[in-house]
Amino acid sequence: MSARLIDGKAIAADIRADLREQVQRLPVQPGLATVLVGTRPDSVTYVNMKHRACAEVGVRSVRVELPESVSEAELVGRVRELNTDPQVHGILVQLPLPPHIDEERVLAQVSLEKDVDGFHPVNIGRLAMKNRDPLFVPCTPLGCIELLRHSGTAIAGRQAVVLGRSNIVGLPVALLLLRENATVTVCHSRTRDIAAVVRQADILVAAIGKPEYVQADWLRPGVTVIDVGINQKPDASSARGYRLVGDVDFDACRRVAGQITPVPGGTGPMTIAMLLRNTVRAAQRQVQNG
Amino acid sequence: MSARLIDGKAIAADIRADLREQVQRLPVQPGLATVLVGTRPDSVTYVNMKHRACAEVGVRSVRVELPESVSEAELVGRVRELNTDPQVHGILVQLPLPPHIDEERVLAQVSLEKDVDGFHPVNIGRLAMKNRDPLFVPCTPLGCIELLRHSGTAIAGRQAVVLGRSNIVGLPVALLLLRENATVTVCHSRTRDIAAVVRQADILVAAIGKPEYVQADWLRPGVTVIDVGINQKPDASSARGYRLVGDVDFDACRRVAGQITPVPGGTGPMTIAMLLRNTVRAAQRQVQNG
Repeated sequence: MSARLIDGKAIAADIRADLREQVQRLPVQPGLATVLVGTRPDSVTYVNMKHRACAEVGVRSVRVELPESVSEAELVGRVRELNTDPQVHGILVQLPLPPHIDEERVLAQVSLEKDVDGFHPVNIGRLAMKNRDPLFVPCTPLGCIELLRHSGTAIAGRQAVVLGRSNIVGLPVALLLLRENATVTVCHSRTRDIAAVVRQADILVAAIGKPEYVQADWLRPGVTVIDVGINQKPDASSARGYRLVGDVDFDACRRVAGQITPVPGGTGPMTIAMLLRNTVRAAQRQVQNG
Repeated sequence: MSARLIDGKAIAADIRADLREQVQRLPVQPGLATVLVGTRPDSVTYVNMKHRACAEVGVRSVRVELPESVSEAELVGRVRELNTDPQVHGILVQLPLPPHIDEERVLAQVSLEKDVDGFHPVNIGRLAMKNRDPLFVPCTPLGCIELLRHSGTAIAGRQAVVLGRSNIVGLPVALLLLRENATVTVCHSRTRDIAAVVRQADILVAAIGKPEYVQADWLRPGVTVIDVGINQKPDASSARGYRLVGDVDFDACRRVAGQITPVPGGTGPMTIAMLLRNTVRAAQRQVQNG
């Protein structure tokens, strides 16, 4: 028996195709501004991917690039300019920011209506509360939920285990799963006997940042596995000298799981699709609210 | 074998005694304002208890009482007046508010520096994020953590199970336990086989609002039980016709648990002690910041 693959690449392509049509029906062209501080190679890569995806669905994209040495005041000033720019409907501040800048203070300056990354403290606060709706939900966690939906995995009443408690993935995905009525357990580096906890899971979201960490004998047969990890593993047979692997030992785990996302081609494309969707929704809402 | 009682009443009395000394050393008298809308008997009781506790430790307290029919705008106006009142260091809006008022919009108007109830959406957002510190943490969840500390229960690395996911207790206590490095599971009305999940717990926080719901055979022997429930149970032998019981079947569970809080006299007094502590800290901070 081999797990059914959850094809994030194909699902994301369908979402982008749908968004392209929605964009054509809008009276304005949705605009996304990215704010990149410094030249971290991974951040540069992510920002480039986002701009390419915008172009594909017809979203206008604007780059703001600032030197690593930029002051917090100057960065905040740029964010505020974007807040008042009527051609910009969504603002994404690429994280992480350099250590001399207070991340929360900057994110709190993004207009709630343009917070397409969902990291404004008020949007996070709403995500953590029942009966309050964040205007936007962080893209990677939202992508995980979409993958579960598209794969036909029931969430309500099931035991979900989240490995990792980062602000960007683990915590918000746990909050989202709870909103979907899962029983949710959050594990992390301090958890004792992580294998025993994972073995309870009907749904496993792995976002712990350790290559091929989750072993096949930790899994309950039939579990749905969403692998958020993107790690480089040395591989002499690859031209780059490495290949990308997730937080799950894919080849072994796919023999036990019921459904599993591949890396790459699982959660990665969904993150960008959710960013585009948030941006298009931001534009739709701003058009409605005139 | 009978569980050791975690005596919230005694621990809260010690905390109040300590706060009384801190208040005497402050150059200003700390002030707490309560805002009560309507005349719900339980809300009136809670507000009265808070004022009595303030008097006991030397905190000045101010009552704002508004009719059930008050408009949101008028309520917000009163909150803003309290924000600028230099004699008021902490503001508590008694929940729940009537249905015609948007609770989050009102709570968001409380100055972050005076949010001694910890329910401002930004304080909740910070509570949900690593490396961000809320200025204040909601009082009942904070009281649960204090009871664990005072009882000598280790939290880091242990399996904590939270029954209930309310905004006021379940969710914030889960976030606090996670910050204390517990492995945290949140259960609720949609959880399947809640007994099996509870059986994993080294620490159980019951906040599900069902009288004597947790059964002795759900418990792992030695577990520490924090019972946040306050329910009325008909009792002909009582002059009031009822007695207060928690969410845990106390008489049976105390034979299995290692430590357990009684109801009343467990989490209830701690909630008020934490409100006083938050108010005194608010005054200390406002004095320091001139």
